[in-house]
Amino acid sequence: MSAAVDPVLAHVDAHIGESLERLMALVRIPSISTDPAYAAQCTKAGQWLVDDLAGQGYDASLRQTAGHPMVVAHDKGATSGPHVLFYGHYDVQPVDPIGLWSSDPFEPALREGPDGEKEITGRGTSDDKGQLLTFVEACRAWKAVHGTLPLRVTFLFEGEEESGSPSLLPFLDATGDELRADVALVCDTDMWGPDTPSINSMLRGLVGEELTITCADKDLHSGMFGSAARNPNQVLAEIIASLRNPDGSVAIEGFYDDVAEVPAAVAEQWRNLGFSEAGYLGSVGLKTPAGEAGRSVLEQIWSRPTCEINGMWGGYTGDGFKTVIPSKASAKISFRLVSGQDPVKIRAAFRAHVEARLPADCTVSFKPHGGSPAITVPVDGPYLAPALAALTDEWNKPAVVVGSGGSIPVVGEFKRRLGMDTLLIGFARIDDRIHSPNEKYNLKSFHKGIRSWVRVLDALAAVK
Amino acid sequence: MSAAVDPVLAHVDAHIGESLERLMALVRIPSISTDPAYAAQCTKAGQWLVDDLAGQGYDASLRQTAGHPMVVAHDKGATSGPHVLFYGHYDVQPVDPIGLWSSDPFEPALREGPDGEKEITGRGTSDDKGQLLTFVEACRAWKAVHGTLPLRVTFLFEGEEESGSPSLLPFLDATGDELRADVALVCDTDMWGPDTPSINSMLRGLVGEELTITCADKDLHSGMFGSAARNPNQVLAEIIASLRNPDGSVAIEGFYDDVAEVPAAVAEQWRNLGFSEAGYLGSVGLKTPAGEAGRSVLEQIWSRPTCEINGMWGGYTGDGFKTVIPSKASAKISFRLVSGQDPVKIRAAFRAHVEARLPADCTVSFKPHGGSPAITVPVDGPYLAPALAALTDEWNKPAVVVGSGGSIPVVGEFKRRLGMDTLLIGFARIDDRIHSPNEKYNLKSFHKGIRSWVRVLDALAAVK
Repeated sequence: MSAAVDPVLAHVDAHIGESLERLMALVRIPSISTDPAYAAQCTKAGQWLVDDLAGQGYDASLRQTAGHPMVVAHDKGATSGPHVLFYGHYDVQPVDPIGLWSSDPFEPALREGPDGEKEITGRGTSDDKGQLLTFVEACRAWKAVHGTLPLRVTFLFEGEEESGSPSLLPFLDATGDELRADVALVCDTDMWGPDTPSINSMLRGLVGEELTITCADKDLHSGMFGSAARNPNQVLAEIIASLRNPDGSVAIEGFYDDVAEVPAAVAEQWRNLGFSEAGYLGSVGLKTPAGEAGRSVLEQIWSRPTCEINGMWGGYTGDGFKTVIPSKASAKISFRLVSGQDPVKIRAAFRAHVEARLPADCTVSFKPHGGSPAITVPVDGPYLAPALAALTDEWNKPAVVVGSGGSIPVVGEFKRRLGMDTLLIGFARIDDRIHSPNEKYNLKSFHKGIRSWVRVLDALAAVK
Repeated sequence: MSAAVDPVLAHVDAHIGESLERLMALVRIPSISTDPAYAAQCTKAGQWLVDDLAGQGYDASLRQTAGHPMVVAHDKGATSGPHVLFYGHYDVQPVDPIGLWSSDPFEPALREGPDGEKEITGRGTSDDKGQLLTFVEACRAWKAVHGTLPLRVTFLFEGEEESGSPSLLPFLDATGDELRADVALVCDTDMWGPDTPSINSMLRGLVGEELTITCADKDLHSGMFGSAARNPNQVLAEIIASLRNPDGSVAIEGFYDDVAEVPAAVAEQWRNLGFSEAGYLGSVGLKTPAGEAGRSVLEQIWSRPTCEINGMWGGYTGDGFKTVIPSKASAKISFRLVSGQDPVKIRAAFRAHVEARLPADCTVSFKPHGGSPAITVPVDGPYLAPALAALTDEWNKPAVVVGSGGSIPVVGEFKRRLGMDTLLIGFARIDDRIHSPNEKYNLKSFHKGIRSWVRVLDALAAVK
């Protein structure tokens, strides 16, 4: 650690209240990217970031895309050290079911959580507005103290991460020369434990599919047609049921063909992480792993693929009762992929599985929602060890290398299109309720996250 | 047919335009009984009927219940002939999916249908506002011509038929002496064909159930928990799939225990009805009967019980995609029962079936939505033959005795609580799209329905 760090950390501590106010201002903008009704709010959130970055002296601009705009900012100050590209996203998940929120998702507040820790509540506080601002605030403090950053930094924030990033690939292809750096930094992951920092080296891929089963050409009265007419709710349920075997594995033909076992050394390391299956499942009210029998929970969520029904609907779903046989029933289904699996092949296998099980008088239509392979980040690159050391310094606990069940498609695209590896460093907690009602980000995640980035910036600047 | 009929029929023809205007006025009141937001509109529709009946000189009143009010009206004019109780319902089904309506469901219009016939469009035009007004208008015409009705008439209109009639039983128990008549008339059924009148002698019963499966105590991110956490969408789909056997029969233990085959004579009569399975299914875009293998479509919808998934939902169902594992998933499921089946026993068997299939970490809650046994109307009573003859006169085609897959619980309650049999006479058509978008009632159903009731009133008045 260089001598430059301490005054920056002191500056962070002295100005944490202002950092928090900026986070709250950004959270107040309801930038839900999946809902077209919030398009203007997405642009507003992007512009907020541009204004903030330009105000700090960066060369910042909002870049239009076919969807929500990108934010790109370059620091022109540093002339030495590696060049890092920091990526985050300013869009957030929808908030339904809104009735389960205990306060307005877009009116953030600082409250005491059940464990006595201070929490910042609101949609996007953790995923990803709080996380991305830890980096922005670390750079702000460094510049405030030293005038220039210790290494070259480019910022990239997108507004479509929660809706499959449709504009990201064309944008990377068009602006690759401008964005290419020595290493990418992504802050969209959890810590291993409340006080155990971690860097992710494995991310599952994702294939999203929406399917609609159509039977009759109109909704029917179940008294007049009940049993004689094919019911798409029943058909869809039977198809969904057929996706899983009784042992918890996925029943699609060829699904596991390209799945490799994790290397023995990695498996050994996972066993030594002290992971509590009971604690993990117990935190959400569960006790029994539902995935492949004979696999540990860490395997189930990190190194084994899965199929999840994220949404399904058909017929009458309001109050009371309606004796209808609907014309259509639909589901949103996602597959988490592991290293080796090809999203194109998995999507095709799923569709073939459905089509082979379609009874008489039914048609099916499919709509793709994103597809990306799993990612494995090399653990022997020049940046990982210094970053781990910096995190260890801040948290006074050894930083660990872990896997993740989630998917961050941009990491694969950085590698594929720009030739960059990524360091996945995040400060979220497993109980942050991202994508759920009552999302929160611990003040400690935010504050020590900023401090962590100050140390990581310093450590990476020293890499030759 | 008595000489009294012809001038009444002429009056009906001369004033059909005014009758139509009254139907449209009633349809304009959005009396959706299942949705609490429309409670005031239900009362408004009931009051509209009271005002109309009182204006014709009946002793009419709105009777409060724990739910939507009842309309009761007595004709005090006739002193001879049998006493008939006419039952209908002024409430209507919800209108979703609203996007599939080609015009406002509550702004009725007279249009030419694809077959060149004039249709009255709008929610409730057929079920049941149009149907109930055929009787009201027939009585109006009779009184206008002759001053008094040819037999004693009591009107009973409820506002909760589409939501399980929760207030009907207590009301029948409390006002049975006032309502008891020699025979009940119910106009909530179809004609056998576009020009073939019919009287229904069998109605299936109905058991409605809503179930909710709960797994985790909050919505989860499918990346972080996918495969390790039990997904209630998957559990619900597997349970729904388990309700049916591959041969189309219902797989609940004991479901068919009390189901008898229809008598050979009835089966023979059904075979002679000239029913076209291809035409029936083809009218809604289907070709293949989905019910029990080896059973005709008429058996499937009239004399065999079934289980239909009327609604199911869980997780994210909006635009775009959300990688959530929901905490809960729900379904609305109805059972159509046939003669011999006990609603209480069937409900219990269904719940036991679900509970036996609940995997680890899941709980289920059930909510009942009505339950009524099937009805068989005797075909040898004093009123059936004269009514069939009257219908035959009006339509110039022999009226037939048929079954029905639908459920009209009030018919069973009239028998059980008031000792009355019922004549089920209706003029709806199979393609009226009741309970669906773009509901309509043919002008011919309405006009000749009124004329039919004029003849039936005359015929029943002559029964000693």
